[in-house]
Amino acid sequence: MTHGRVPLLAKKLKIALLQVAPGTSVSANLTKVEEYATNAKNIYPDVDLLMLPEFFNSPYDVAKFREYAEPIPNGKTTKFLSLLARSLSVIIVGGSIPELDGEKVYNTSVTFNVKGELIGKHRKVHLFDLDSPKGAFRESDSLFPGDKATNIALPSFGQIGLAICYDIKFPELAAIAARKHNAFAMFYPGSFNATSGQLLGRSRAIDNQIFTVLCSPARNPDSGLYPAYGHSLVVDPFGKIIAEAGEGEQTVFCELDPEVIHMARESIPVSLQRRFDVYDDISVNAKINED
Amino acid sequence: MTHGRVPLLAKKLKIALLQVAPGTSVSANLTKVEEYATNAKNIYPDVDLLMLPEFFNSPYDVAKFREYAEPIPNGKTTKFLSLLARSLSVIIVGGSIPELDGEKVYNTSVTFNVKGELIGKHRKVHLFDLDSPKGAFRESDSLFPGDKATNIALPSFGQIGLAICYDIKFPELAAIAARKHNAFAMFYPGSFNATSGQLLGRSRAIDNQIFTVLCSPARNPDSGLYPAYGHSLVVDPFGKIIAEAGEGEQTVFCELDPEVIHMARESIPVSLQRRFDVYDDISVNAKINED
Repeated sequence: MTHGRVPLLAKKLKIALLQVAPGTSVSANLTKVEEYATNAKNIYPDVDLLMLPEFFNSPYDVAKFREYAEPIPNGKTTKFLSLLARSLSVIIVGGSIPELDGEKVYNTSVTFNVKGELIGKHRKVHLFDLDSPKGAFRESDSLFPGDKATNIALPSFGQIGLAICYDIKFPELAAIAARKHNAFAMFYPGSFNATSGQLLGRSRAIDNQIFTVLCSPARNPDSGLYPAYGHSLVVDPFGKIIAEAGEGEQTVFCELDPEVIHMARESIPVSLQRRFDVYDDISVNAKINED
Repeated sequence: MTHGRVPLLAKKLKIALLQVAPGTSVSANLTKVEEYATNAKNIYPDVDLLMLPEFFNSPYDVAKFREYAEPIPNGKTTKFLSLLARSLSVIIVGGSIPELDGEKVYNTSVTFNVKGELIGKHRKVHLFDLDSPKGAFRESDSLFPGDKATNIALPSFGQIGLAICYDIKFPELAAIAARKHNAFAMFYPGSFNATSGQLLGRSRAIDNQIFTVLCSPARNPDSGLYPAYGHSLVVDPFGKIIAEAGEGEQTVFCELDPEVIHMARESIPVSLQRRFDVYDDISVNAKINED
């Protein structure tokens, strides 16, 4: 079964969230990421995993996604991340970038192991389309959605689920990762606002008794209708915030401790108490990426 | 469809949560409920609905549920609530009581319309069983679980979902109510603790863009391993707490405004963005009480 004494997370996972604020130059954005990554490794030499925000290499602008889009794995940013992971010998959860595949553009996250090998790829499933008093914002004007939930095996640690920003609004993806793949955490690169980011991060964590890890860009008031807000966040399986950034550019260090998952699940064995005779298990028929 | 311009809630619903602390005497408990209900109606003459906590008529004690259990609808407490609803001309969401049905005991909630007619009944689906450092607590030692989600039509207002206490830990029941029955709110009589009650109440509200209404007993430090904590709570469809009690015996008044649901769903049309091509809709095959 998914819970109880099975070690979902084989050992402590030491992570650093690089909360950078991307500008309009891809080269400058990648240079900044390299600086933050190198600093994180210097300050915290045994860090296992670095995480980047949504669209860390380009502006968050519906009108410009296509202009900045790159193929995966042969584009500049993907190659950069692969080399960076290998040279620092860390896992990198590569936030997201605009991906060009044929004529289509996606909001896509790539993850690399310590050898720089691509071990996971997620295309944002739920595009952020809304009309608010501040104005309309429609990712679907220029992006295509992905069509699968994503699971990634982190060598030596365990399974994670990955989804991007607005995907967090939909509880299904976290439930699928936790139930179907025994994920110990959901990783969400995103551009969250402080209020709903916290609430949604805590909700997915407590409901699935997993860690949730949200990495946002730093606040950039010039970045249009929905400026990023910082507040990168780590929540434990009890729904408690264990690390949180402010608004500016900064790095958040945090350890994900398997013992905390164990404690949460031992004390409240939710997974054994679900009533799949009353309602279905959402994870059973889900479509999954397991690249 | 469930969202958009359909008026899920036909007009403002004015509610009062009666956060009482039950003792060991059923008669004294009902007398206190009558006092609180009458006061609420006096203070707030146009109140539409009164809500009571879980086990408002009896102690929350696994060893005593059977001793206090009553048949429904012919038991003393059910008759009392029916008369009270009719005499005050209010809807009553009757918290919960231990119900005796044949040889079985359930944790059951009954709801009455303004004529005192029974319009809904829910048997707690997820029993609260856990082992903690403080000790084991197993409702299933003396209770049987219900086997359906519950939907109740409130005349002149709209549809609600109802579930009891630990049922809130499982997101499915709120999703079923909101998606399958266009419920504008979930009502949860319970004995919540301040931290997880808030988080779970806010989670169910924001994920389903509905109100959530949690009515707890007041704090009673003498009531055993898991003393109630008060903090009855109303959350709006944005996940914002709009009313909250302290720990003591008190009444919380609050209005549920249809305009707030409308605003939440207009600005973020979650119901149109779910990806049932990637995962199933949990509500489709659910088993439902619609008594």
